[in-house]
Amino acid sequence: MAEKSKILVIGGTGYIGKYIVEASAKSGHPTFALCRERTISDPDKAKLIQDFKNSGVTILIGDLNDHESLLKAIRIVDVVISTVGIAQLADQVNIIAAIKEAGNVKRFFPSDFGYDADRARAVEPAKSLHECKARIRRAIEAQGIPYTHVCSNYFAGYSLPTLVQRGSTAPPRDKVIILGDGNAKAVFNDERDIGIYTIKAVDDPRTLNKILFINPPKNVYSFNELVALWEKKIGKTLEKEYVPEEQVLKQIQESATDAKLILSLNHSIFVKGDQTYFEIEPSFGVEASELYPDVEYTTVDEYLDQFV
Amino acid sequence: MAEKSKILVIGGTGYIGKYIVEASAKSGHPTFALCRERTISDPDKAKLIQDFKNSGVTILIGDLNDHESLLKAIRIVDVVISTVGIAQLADQVNIIAAIKEAGNVKRFFPSDFGYDADRARAVEPAKSLHECKARIRRAIEAQGIPYTHVCSNYFAGYSLPTLVQRGSTAPPRDKVIILGDGNAKAVFNDERDIGIYTIKAVDDPRTLNKILFINPPKNVYSFNELVALWEKKIGKTLEKEYVPEEQVLKQIQESATDAKLILSLNHSIFVKGDQTYFEIEPSFGVEASELYPDVEYTTVDEYLDQFV
Repeated sequence: MAEKSKILVIGGTGYIGKYIVEASAKSGHPTFALCRERTISDPDKAKLIQDFKNSGVTILIGDLNDHESLLKAIRIVDVVISTVGIAQLADQVNIIAAIKEAGNVKRFFPSDFGYDADRARAVEPAKSLHECKARIRRAIEAQGIPYTHVCSNYFAGYSLPTLVQRGSTAPPRDKVIILGDGNAKAVFNDERDIGIYTIKAVDDPRTLNKILFINPPKNVYSFNELVALWEKKIGKTLEKEYVPEEQVLKQIQESATDAKLILSLNHSIFVKGDQTYFEIEPSFGVEASELYPDVEYTTVDEYLDQFV
Repeated sequence: MAEKSKILVIGGTGYIGKYIVEASAKSGHPTFALCRERTISDPDKAKLIQDFKNSGVTILIGDLNDHESLLKAIRIVDVVISTVGIAQLADQVNIIAAIKEAGNVKRFFPSDFGYDADRARAVEPAKSLHECKARIRRAIEAQGIPYTHVCSNYFAGYSLPTLVQRGSTAPPRDKVIILGDGNAKAVFNDERDIGIYTIKAVDDPRTLNKILFINPPKNVYSFNELVALWEKKIGKTLEKEYVPEEQVLKQIQESATDAKLILSLNHSIFVKGDQTYFEIEPSFGVEASELYPDVEYTTVDEYLDQFV
């Protein structure tokens, strides 16, 4: 059996990053997390950093915007996975430059972990977000860096606990708001599974220069199907308010900055069906649950049970 | 007994904000937290939001950058406490404008919770941070808004667990690095006490248009004294490396962006002594432990016991 690649995660203390770090360490890859000084000294991150250390993860102090520390970290690994947040997506050009300079990296996973930026048909401000991710893809291609882009679709933790009801902190018991006609299919994945699939792709030649779509069949639901499943679980029929697309678009216009992004993403996902409207062609993509049928992923059905 | 003021916290899910919200709710003030949609739907914040609700806190959905939601929230309270993070300090002009428009707010606490921005003698980038805080102070004064600025000094959680050793996650057992000669006095306060003192100041006429300095005598230590206390606790003498000021300044220059800010703050605090070099004159400030001698604050001595 070949030696497992050394993995560097940049953004490992972030929302999805911690699941990637955890999966990497658990699967026996020598795992490194590049952390900023302020993250290491942030008491709110202390437990996570300690968990990393207990799992054998090596913490490297550094910063995406500090070339020297970045280059030093990259030079000691085989694979770089970026899980930086929205504010740092554009700064990933620094990672690309450092990977190019280092010359030893055999795979780069840029911070994607959403849905396909090249195929999304979102309106602003989600549009700009996808354009930024697409620019990073083009920069990777231009430099000839081997890559895998992970489209992990909707994080279960962000969507299922409230059934994507805005401003709510629990799933609906009386009334549910549905964007569009509720028929577009979306995909909801448990964050731990996203970590596991991502790490499986690291040393897999089938994912080289491809998009890894995490679209396991049992997690693909239209909003109407999702509501029906929930109704069945709680034994109650919910009142349904359908919001026509033109009204969704108007709400995006009138929302505060922060809500604008969430709503424009939800418009793209639930009205336009951007997570699933196209076929995954072998020329650009592979599907995770097909590649790794041994992974017993958490299904939406199972996930929702905890809220009944 | 007068009715307790209704308090709105903006930034309540942030590092210091959660202690302010907790203290406000515990002390019986009707408490409101303005939260962005993305914060409410952030699974990493779910427990905190639930804790708030369990404590009787009302969550209002809104955004500093969305005038309507901000104004609506401000109109239902008496006192506004901002605990926004560094990235949003400048945006507090929006809060000032909304308070001015609303006309009902009897006290505004801008996001300070550091040390005195008007008296700090820091180098860049800490200098710019203080200038930004000072500009917010001037804007508040210009609008004639009643205020209290809280100088809470060094958060214990950020400083004591490592004795301010960079990149470390535990206190030193062998060697300690000391900036400057180690004689400048600094102040280290438990975040819960900062919350308690802040809320006590809300309805107190003695803190009106004043800086509330949280400088309780048992928490004022020079770095040398702090190290001596730690050495006594672990029964061991540490090797000491003193870094002369010129070398600290050089390190700031050469650090990554993120480390620059931390190091320039530490230079200001531990080399220049900016938390304590001046007398607190009654014309501009009051000291919290003098005003509220009934608060049994956690001392540095007690705090360090947990790491022995």
